[in-house]
Amino acid sequence: MSLDGLDTPFLAVDLAVMDRNIERLAGRLRGTGIQLRPHAKSHKCVEIAQRQIDSGAIGLTVATIGEAEVFAEAGFTDLFIAYPLWVTAPKARRLRQVATRTALRLAVDSAVGAQQLAEHLGDLPFTVVVEIDSGHHRTGVTPEEAGAVAAAARAAGLNVVGVFTFPGHGYTPGQRAEVAAQESRALDAAAKSLHAQGIEPSVRSGGSTPTVGAADSTVLTEVRPGVYPFNDAQQFELDVCTLDDIALSAITTVVHARGRTAIVDAGSKILGADRPGWATGFGRVIDAPDARIVALSEHHATVEFPGAAPSPGTRLRIAPNHLCNAVNLVDSLVIDTAGGPYHWAVAARGANT
Amino acid sequence: MSLDGLDTPFLAVDLAVMDRNIERLAGRLRGTGIQLRPHAKSHKCVEIAQRQIDSGAIGLTVATIGEAEVFAEAGFTDLFIAYPLWVTAPKARRLRQVATRTALRLAVDSAVGAQQLAEHLGDLPFTVVVEIDSGHHRTGVTPEEAGAVAAAARAAGLNVVGVFTFPGHGYTPGQRAEVAAQESRALDAAAKSLHAQGIEPSVRSGGSTPTVGAADSTVLTEVRPGVYPFNDAQQFELDVCTLDDIALSAITTVVHARGRTAIVDAGSKILGADRPGWATGFGRVIDAPDARIVALSEHHATVEFPGAAPSPGTRLRIAPNHLCNAVNLVDSLVIDTAGGPYHWAVAARGANT
Repeated sequence: MSLDGLDTPFLAVDLAVMDRNIERLAGRLRGTGIQLRPHAKSHKCVEIAQRQIDSGAIGLTVATIGEAEVFAEAGFTDLFIAYPLWVTAPKARRLRQVATRTALRLAVDSAVGAQQLAEHLGDLPFTVVVEIDSGHHRTGVTPEEAGAVAAAARAAGLNVVGVFTFPGHGYTPGQRAEVAAQESRALDAAAKSLHAQGIEPSVRSGGSTPTVGAADSTVLTEVRPGVYPFNDAQQFELDVCTLDDIALSAITTVVHARGRTAIVDAGSKILGADRPGWATGFGRVIDAPDARIVALSEHHATVEFPGAAPSPGTRLRIAPNHLCNAVNLVDSLVIDTAGGPYHWAVAARGANT
Repeated sequence: MSLDGLDTPFLAVDLAVMDRNIERLAGRLRGTGIQLRPHAKSHKCVEIAQRQIDSGAIGLTVATIGEAEVFAEAGFTDLFIAYPLWVTAPKARRLRQVATRTALRLAVDSAVGAQQLAEHLGDLPFTVVVEIDSGHHRTGVTPEEAGAVAAAARAAGLNVVGVFTFPGHGYTPGQRAEVAAQESRALDAAAKSLHAQGIEPSVRSGGSTPTVGAADSTVLTEVRPGVYPFNDAQQFELDVCTLDDIALSAITTVVHARGRTAIVDAGSKILGADRPGWATGFGRVIDAPDARIVALSEHHATVEFPGAAPSPGTRLRIAPNHLCNAVNLVDSLVIDTAGGPYHWAVAARGANT
């Protein structure tokens, strides 16, 4: 059996490329003093998380309690839910169960959120970090406000150990170095704000795949990239990786061709519908770097080629723009190896709560 | 148990609104001579498909063999796979199996595709329709080319019964009536093109939720809307429905608030990332029609309110822009009824091949 025997579309992983990507980042971080806590929301696979731990990662980052449940159940023993959860009684029951299996770090970005957390789970031995906004303007407080939130959390009885941020505005062409510098300044200012409250900010966590290469080891103690094992069209177009570094692609079949335009059988239900304004299209054709994906329906991608389009029946590999959303659309990934393909379950698919 | 006891985010269906939407469209079509064959890719739920049949639909439309497998297995006996499949041996085996349970209509849009279909499945008693392009410029031939494709399909031994189109360019503000007119002209011209080859175009199938209200009963014999049981933010912003007609929403919780901005715990992993250029944002807040969803991450939506944002812990209902992609992200829908909520499986979730 080869990939040719599998009905398209499906998501395939080039295992050799993925292993190279995992090792490359781990190697870059060794000796810098920066610890790696990869974000498992990107791959949602136990097998890939294990490879990350084997490469030296100190634990995993997850986005939801549901993801924490999956990875705790699979035996991972150090999880950070990098999200300012609004903890209700049902969510608290689930967190309590997760905490029986794994060390847990939780996030707060308000005094009221910290109080809510303490009220429901104050007796558990988890740690807490304060989320700060380093310029992405999503959740998180300003660096200067971090000390007050940390103090409120401490007053509520929580064990505050530091600060974290997600520099998501690094997903802009040409901005990676500047955003990494903003991240560093923000984490440093937030750390000082905790110090001023007498709280030791021993965790200063940041990082994302675009910015991790410029992470400042004089400030950051930890990075949380997610996409780096696979890479995707966004990373390629942001100049974070080459096409050869993309380990995950949708294997598609041309179903219609006319002149320079082909329609393939992969759409937003396997690639995801992400399309940042700066992107060249809805993904990239790995086999035809000059082609552009100009339109996307649920089961159609419209691809324009510089010359004649390939004939119906031709298979093409397409890198999604944003693999985190693509992976979440399938039950399993097809692992392409020299010995033939096999499947890995997307164990945390759909774990949204 | 009420919805309040369920962890957010999840997708909830207001059953009374959904039933009203299903009956309203069925009622409009009764007596027009236009038959209803709703697209099941939108809801992927057996229970909803059954309600559509009970309202008078003659069968279902699906997008993939995988969806046909699910609905054939569930007992639906008349399925149209409205996609120009490139039929390989493994796909042919699956289609053969589906055909043991249900009447099957398949699509072609090229002579080579028709030959491929005939070679693998020529002995089966399915019917074939030719896809034409009525202006959306995706798959399909021009109306004038339809006769030649139909003749080639007939020559290959296939039972050609008509033509179909998807007027997807009706998803543009203010264009619905004009696009429905284009659809009608294109189907009429394609029907004449088949006639000229001596082939009776007894099926002239079109329609989509935005255009179905203007379907021309002098030309169309059938419509295939998908979104109408639920509606979504796109339909609202296209003026196809009111907010009160939206039956499906993501139930979300505010996790962060500052001034006029709130962050809720629903992002692209439950709403989908669709965002047409003409949309006001990444969905609509049903409880706050003047709010705008200005940014979307995987687990965050950034919502700007005209006044002060609601506090953390507040629940908000958000209509996705494009529900077909939202529904495909969850294992089940929460059905909200006066008697309390229950779940319907999204039986064809992820059925991409």
